[in-house]
Amino acid sequence: MKKLLLVYIVLIGTLMAYLYMVFVKEDNSGLLNEPEGLHGTLDEKYVMVNFLAGIDYWKNGLKGFEDAAEALGVSVEYRGSTQYDVQEEVMVLEQVIARSPAGIAVSAIDSEALNSAINKAVEAGIPVVMFDSDAPNSKAYSYIGTNNYNAGVTAARKMAELTGGIGKVGVVTLPKQLNHQERTRGFEETLEKEFPDLQLVGIADGKGDQMISEQKVRDLLKRFPDLNGIFVTEANGGVGAGNAILRLGKLDQVRIISFDTDKGTLDMVKSGTISATLAQGTWNMGYWSLMQLFHLRNHMVNPMSDNAGSSIPPLPTNIDTGITVVTPEDVDQFYAK
Amino acid sequence: MKKLLLVYIVLIGTLMAYLYMVFVKEDNSGLLNEPEGLHGTLDEKYVMVNFLAGIDYWKNGLKGFEDAAEALGVSVEYRGSTQYDVQEEVMVLEQVIARSPAGIAVSAIDSEALNSAINKAVEAGIPVVMFDSDAPNSKAYSYIGTNNYNAGVTAARKMAELTGGIGKVGVVTLPKQLNHQERTRGFEETLEKEFPDLQLVGIADGKGDQMISEQKVRDLLKRFPDLNGIFVTEANGGVGAGNAILRLGKLDQVRIISFDTDKGTLDMVKSGTISATLAQGTWNMGYWSLMQLFHLRNHMVNPMSDNAGSSIPPLPTNIDTGITVVTPEDVDQFYAK
Repeated sequence: MKKLLLVYIVLIGTLMAYLYMVFVKEDNSGLLNEPEGLHGTLDEKYVMVNFLAGIDYWKNGLKGFEDAAEALGVSVEYRGSTQYDVQEEVMVLEQVIARSPAGIAVSAIDSEALNSAINKAVEAGIPVVMFDSDAPNSKAYSYIGTNNYNAGVTAARKMAELTGGIGKVGVVTLPKQLNHQERTRGFEETLEKEFPDLQLVGIADGKGDQMISEQKVRDLLKRFPDLNGIFVTEANGGVGAGNAILRLGKLDQVRIISFDTDKGTLDMVKSGTISATLAQGTWNMGYWSLMQLFHLRNHMVNPMSDNAGSSIPPLPTNIDTGITVVTPEDVDQFYAK
Repeated sequence: MKKLLLVYIVLIGTLMAYLYMVFVKEDNSGLLNEPEGLHGTLDEKYVMVNFLAGIDYWKNGLKGFEDAAEALGVSVEYRGSTQYDVQEEVMVLEQVIARSPAGIAVSAIDSEALNSAINKAVEAGIPVVMFDSDAPNSKAYSYIGTNNYNAGVTAARKMAELTGGIGKVGVVTLPKQLNHQERTRGFEETLEKEFPDLQLVGIADGKGDQMISEQKVRDLLKRFPDLNGIFVTEANGGVGAGNAILRLGKLDQVRIISFDTDKGTLDMVKSGTISATLAQGTWNMGYWSLMQLFHLRNHMVNPMSDNAGSSIPPLPTNIDTGITVVTPEDVDQFYAK
């Protein structure tokens, strides 16, 4: 009788164990049948590489990069040259490549100088995408950033609106950098095509410096005292141009369109010294850079691009993150929160 | 004694049940602590809307849309006008909107006619993106497709390579459609700028029809018997142009560059009748359309775009899926598998 009861205990225990295991299994397989979604692992590390790493401009892009990493459950790291120095960025990029990360998003200080490092990474199987500033002749898979030519077109149309489409305008830019060449070209060609009465009288090199740009604007106003507008293709020069017209008492005569949304620029937009500035989609540059690197890393790309020797792009080659015209009316929403 | 044994049975059974429940719980929470990743639910349904829904051209784009949906664990549906009929596509789109889907990717048969339906959807909170064929003046959030102007630039450079950059060339196109206007403009402006010895002598309307295009090419060759090349901006016309030069025995004289990769075009590339065709990134159009709609739907976009009345784009405004030049050497990889 005792033995029989012991057998019962074992049988009932086994049955309960079995039932729970079935329950466990079903429960797990139920979970596994749920969509797993797009996700990686924390040891999958993506690196963002840029130059002048300390400046505020990069903060939103890095935030986008981090937000995408958090959504996908992967890790990120941020590296860059501290100076505006081509060789320093090349060195930083070489160091990053040596550690074989899951992917690298690069903003190029020079459109050619990083090509050999970028190509070496791609050939070693490390995905590379460009953001903000392209290296179009490298083997990087894509460019994610502002369409700078279109930004120049937008600036020209806004300038026409601000000046009534008649008069003389100048440009302060960085004539050696691809981004800035494109902005200037879009501005110039749009004036020619759409606003023939708005004459571009001078293009000055502000060297990305506030003081030099202020002097260049003073020179321009000496040569053309009836100047109606200035398009400045970067933020330091925009503040310099603002100071020039403030100090010369030309606030009512000269309309300034600047670039980006650092605090100095926004303050001058708010006060009306700068009539408009062009905000770039920097958060999206970072977010979609990481999204593209993740897809390359995990081979979630155009299936036809997998064929040996294929020239078919695995993913979109060019992502335009757009431009927003910031005016005194809506400037408040652009201040960092 | 029997009662004691019964108590044991119950106690042991309860203990085993408890142990298994702990095991289950731990196992589950282990799973839940893994990165969840990007995923939706199957009741989140995204709809792709196009025109001439039956043609092969859309297959790769739909495959990309489906692949993205599978990765994210959401549902898709595919709707389109059966005819090349503007009003039919408007009606189909209105019907889709009435069922409040999670998002809609639209390829516009006409760059203006769908605007009011698209805007109604966006105003009702249904995300809309454009793919393949844009409606640039609508409130759709973005365009995902070929940069058609750049495709024309690529065609011009390939034509210069094929003809040695000297001679007379023509274009067969659809002059009323935006895509095709852009392709023609990119081709024409690049010839003017980069290849002044390659003269564009005529632009004909092939109406997207093989027979009409063949006749237009015959007419062009009658006017210019020494014609060296023809750029055809869509696939039916390319085959028509191929038939024209075959039947006129002008295969050695006239180089044809066509568009897209349907079987008829690929066969003519393989045989050398068509010298090159431009393949579009259709899989990527579908994949990244869904990816963008998912991000809009789930508010995973630029945080600054959330402010009331903001004009900041929530996500990239323009995604260029790229172009691949297909020649006899690499034509095989483009046949549908």
